[in-house]
Amino acid sequence: MSLKDKKIGFIGLGTMGLPMAQNILKAGYDLGVYNRTESRAEIFRDKGATVYYAPWELAESSDVIIIMVSAPDDLLEIIESIKDVISSGKIVINMSTVSYEATREAAALVKTKSCRFLDAPVSGSKQPAEQASLVILAGGEENLLDECGPLLMTMGTKAIHCGDIGSGTMMKLMINMLLGSMMASFCEALVFGKKVGLKPEDMLTTIEAGALNCPMFKLKGQNILRQDFAKAFPIDLLFKDLNLALEAGGKIGLPLMQTAAAREAFCGAIGLELGDLDMSALIKYFEKNADIEITR
Amino acid sequence: MSLKDKKIGFIGLGTMGLPMAQNILKAGYDLGVYNRTESRAEIFRDKGATVYYAPWELAESSDVIIIMVSAPDDLLEIIESIKDVISSGKIVINMSTVSYEATREAAALVKTKSCRFLDAPVSGSKQPAEQASLVILAGGEENLLDECGPLLMTMGTKAIHCGDIGSGTMMKLMINMLLGSMMASFCEALVFGKKVGLKPEDMLTTIEAGALNCPMFKLKGQNILRQDFAKAFPIDLLFKDLNLALEAGGKIGLPLMQTAAAREAFCGAIGLELGDLDMSALIKYFEKNADIEITR
Amino acid sequence: MSLKDKKIGFIGLGTMGLPMAQNILKAGYDLGVYNRTESRAEIFRDKGATVYYAPWELAESSDVIIIMVSAPDDLLEIIESIKDVISSGKIVINMSTVSYEATREAAALVKTKSCRFLDAPVSGSKQPAEQASLVILAGGEENLLDECGPLLMTMGTKAIHCGDIGSGTMMKLMINMLLGSMMASFCEALVFGKKVGLKPEDMLTTIEAGALNCPMFKLKGQNILRQDFAKAFPIDLLFKDLNLALEAGGKIGLPLMQTAAAREAFCGAIGLELGDLDMSALIKYFEKNADIEITR
Amino acid sequence: MSLKDKKIGFIGLGTMGLPMAQNILKAGYDLGVYNRTESRAEIFRDKGATVYYAPWELAESSDVIIIMVSAPDDLLEIIESIKDVISSGKIVINMSTVSYEATREAAALVKTKSCRFLDAPVSGSKQPAEQASLVILAGGEENLLDECGPLLMTMGTKAIHCGDIGSGTMMKLMINMLLGSMMASFCEALVFGKKVGLKPEDMLTTIEAGALNCPMFKLKGQNILRQDFAKAFPIDLLFKDLNLALEAGGKIGLPLMQTAAAREAFCGAIGLELGDLDMSALIKYFEKNADIEITR
Repeated sequence: MSLKDKKIGFIGLGTMGLPMAQNILKAGYDLGVYNRTESRAEIFRDKGATVYYAPWELAESSDVIIIMVSAPDDLLEIIESIKDVISSGKIVINMSTVSYEATREAAALVKTKSCRFLDAPVSGSKQPAEQASLVILAGGEENLLDECGPLLMTMGTKAIHCGDIGSGTMMKLMINMLLGSMMASFCEALVFGKKVGLKPEDMLTTIEAGALNCPMFKLKGQNILRQDFAKAFPIDLLFKDLNLALEAGGKIGLPLMQTAAAREAFCGAIGLELGDLDMSALIKYFEKNADIEITR
Repeated sequence: MSLKDKKIGFIGLGTMGLPMAQNILKAGYDLGVYNRTESRAEIFRDKGATVYYAPWELAESSDVIIIMVSAPDDLLEIIESIKDVISSGKIVINMSTVSYEATREAAALVKTKSCRFLDAPVSGSKQPAEQASLVILAGGEENLLDECGPLLMTMGTKAIHCGDIGSGTMMKLMINMLLGSMMASFCEALVFGKKVGLKPEDMLTTIEAGALNCPMFKLKGQNILRQDFAKAFPIDLLFKDLNLALEAGGKIGLPLMQTAAAREAFCGAIGLELGDLDMSALIKYFEKNADIEITR
Repeated sequence: MSLKDKKIGFIGLGTMGLPMAQNILKAGYDLGVYNRTESRAEIFRDKGATVYYAPWELAESSDVIIIMVSAPDDLLEIIESIKDVISSGKIVINMSTVSYEATREAAALVKTKSCRFLDAPVSGSKQPAEQASLVILAGGEENLLDECGPLLMTMGTKAIHCGDIGSGTMMKLMINMLLGSMMASFCEALVFGKKVGLKPEDMLTTIEAGALNCPMFKLKGQNILRQDFAKAFPIDLLFKDLNLALEAGGKIGLPLMQTAAAREAFCGAIGLELGDLDMSALIKYFEKNADIEITR
Repeated sequence: MSLKDKKIGFIGLGTMGLPMAQNILKAGYDLGVYNRTESRAEIFRDKGATVYYAPWELAESSDVIIIMVSAPDDLLEIIESIKDVISSGKIVINMSTVSYEATREAAALVKTKSCRFLDAPVSGSKQPAEQASLVILAGGEENLLDECGPLLMTMGTKAIHCGDIGSGTMMKLMINMLLGSMMASFCEALVFGKKVGLKPEDMLTTIEAGALNCPMFKLKGQNILRQDFAKAFPIDLLFKDLNLALEAGGKIGLPLMQTAAAREAFCGAIGLELGDLDMSALIKYFEKNADIEITR
């Protein structure tokens, strides 16, 4: 069965959601959108999408409802507001990064209406979202993932089936925990080097030439050199994810010390009012502590 | 001026030194070697190298003396033992990872004999050493680096001039600080994921598909899956480097919290008697804390 | 005005609440009690207190309502369930340790009914609760604190006015953050000493003889020596408080690294299923990591 | 046997050594002193002590040699310089805080001369040194401790026999590890409280009224309120001790995360050039991170 002829509804047109929805539209799907701040939805009208003014309105008219919001509470609020208008056979796909508990609760609510739920957060930030090269981390029934596959592949290049509902969310927390720790370690190392007299360009060249070379260091390293902190993945959201990861660790009694140290660094960045900037702005927290500027 | 006709002496034939010296020999240089444990030196005899039985013997007969040992004290001991037999015009190249202070002290001793000193530790472990794909992190006079360039390029693919003597060492501490933190964060994330029910293969696939993908995660991830901890870069040596980095931070009053957290994890691995295994065995420390095994 | 002739209602008869309510009763107040698990309330009946079967029932019949529960959600649930039966002039005193936000929200709800609210968590655990030697950390109007003073002094020896509503809660988070860090540091030091061959008794004697000597180390040190982990303040609750403190730090962007490290240790204790034991059982987490037993 | 008629030599008249030596003199012992900076020794001359100009001179003329210096290297340097002039029957007492290895090495050197060695660092800083209320942490033969008891009790109120040579040093590292962690936790809690609007005086009152009340918090809390950082125990020395503790942990493979976090805080204080101030100046590192001043 194909979703190609179905009506797709997309809720949440933020930094990630907007390009993701655009890619669905480009692929020729019949799309409806909703966003809390209406102006971000309006640009879809000219391109042939329907703009809704409430989540329940969108949900009522859609066969597949995709949700891409910021936090557990936002997801649950939306599920709450649509649960009385969704009826048997609809599919709800959550692509937001939330907690395991919120995912399970959302799925349970959806299932009481005989609808199906796919847990499908994504790995990748703004650029992969724009280039339709996200990695989808899916939890739920495998045949539901198969059914949604072509739709999801308008936004990404790969879908990994991680297990039951909640496992996509856990995979996302795992990857963002690693991301946050690596970003903190990267900034710490660069600021250390600068403080002892090394040139930032030389450090980036050295990192790039060896076994630690990864796309993130390349991209964020350039951002840091250019002092370009336009948000791809903002500090506020990564901080939220580190908190979710630590909360998940708390639930199972697993200490996560690297993550905890990174969490404190991001917390400090928020104290410097960098929360709305890209995560590469974390460098400014480390710079302040070391009383240097990396590009001077 | 070329070093092609000069006599090259290589001190320290460990996991790194042995393949590095072999690559010099393969490139056709006139090589002499010394190693504390003689047996590792003997294999060079058949291949046409001279085997010396004391550092001073090697130093007396060589124009260029390369040192690749484990720790600051080892370097200083060797410099001490050769300083009375080196004479004007010789070149001493330290490729070991040591402290800034040891590098500067070694250089100062060498200079009192009107010899030249190059600070040249390497980025890369066993495999890059074997494949002559190391990255040389050089500190010292730029024209000395130029002169040594062809010789160094028998062992590596790139040399980065980092600044004065000591700056190669600092670059090495920066890169290994990042390496140690990343390894600890990697193990923490994998063990978290396993504990919440994710498959290790899926986690590695997810990491590889995204912005965090780097040669180290690929290589060490496979080692972990195969439980293959044959040493390329042993825990003991990485622990030493993390200590050197923290010591360097202490000298300039720069807190390095990510590095400190990683240092404690490696410390715990030593407590489990994993010190002589490859750094990928760090996973066993995290496994023990979580009371799981990643491959079960 | 005195509260001596008023009807006092006490909600929450846990480890802390039970002895606190008993002390109010002993002082001759007209007391009503409510507890989720009824059996703990029954023992009050014979002593002349009224036992209620729902919070709203108690609230309706009481002039002063004291709440001593475990977590922010519990407090808000109770406020929600009583808010329609409280009427002008009643006083609600929250003595539970919750978040700043929960305190403020509870106070706001109470004020909509023209009732007064006192934020009054306590410093001290089971023994001070039994001995009526708690320290009350009060936030709210100073004359309300004066009015409640004699009632509060049936449970404690001192009341500290910390500022507006919410400041009592913040003072409590400050003190418990310090408590959690100190407990983790204490266990770490004892296990280190044991591992290097020192006798636990000698360590406690040394600590007691110097500037670090405090009632907690004395009491918990003895618990550890006797392996007596009967709960005075259980690990689960202290873990909750450390999370509240870190959450408060997150709200203002203030890194709390000592607290974060302690939080991970308590998290590990929960992983060993020690959550319901006294916080002195934290030693078992450190013992496991060090592979020793402190009393062997 | 009594040491009352013996000649006592005291090496190292720093913040601690000076009042300790004065207390020996006051008790009527025949005292000789040596200090690197001569001026600090001169004041002893008028009081009837002999002033020596080299450690070996003092050692040659003394029956008992007490050493109170700053670091492992200083101790070993002194032992080296006196080892050829000490002869059978003399007693060497090291009261400095050094590493286990330095203590053992010093003892071994002393024993080759048929002299006896007592490992005897102290718990307590400037004020207890002045008031002769130090706690002596002794390692070595119990009958040697008995013999030295009356002499040691001129400086302290209690001697704890901790085990063999090295165990006094280990006890000292244990207590100072705890001290450093507690100081960092104390500053963190105070700065958190201030940042959320609590008054420092109220926080100190709250701490003092509860189970965490200890002489250190009382004394250092007052120092902080008065911004009086005249050194009793300087940050530099406590940082040294935290490094020694972590090094000792490294030797046995025992992670010490609370200590490691505290070490980074003290490291940051050194970066702010507070190393020569009292450890209570650590508050300034936390203030800077929080962008507040505790007394404003």
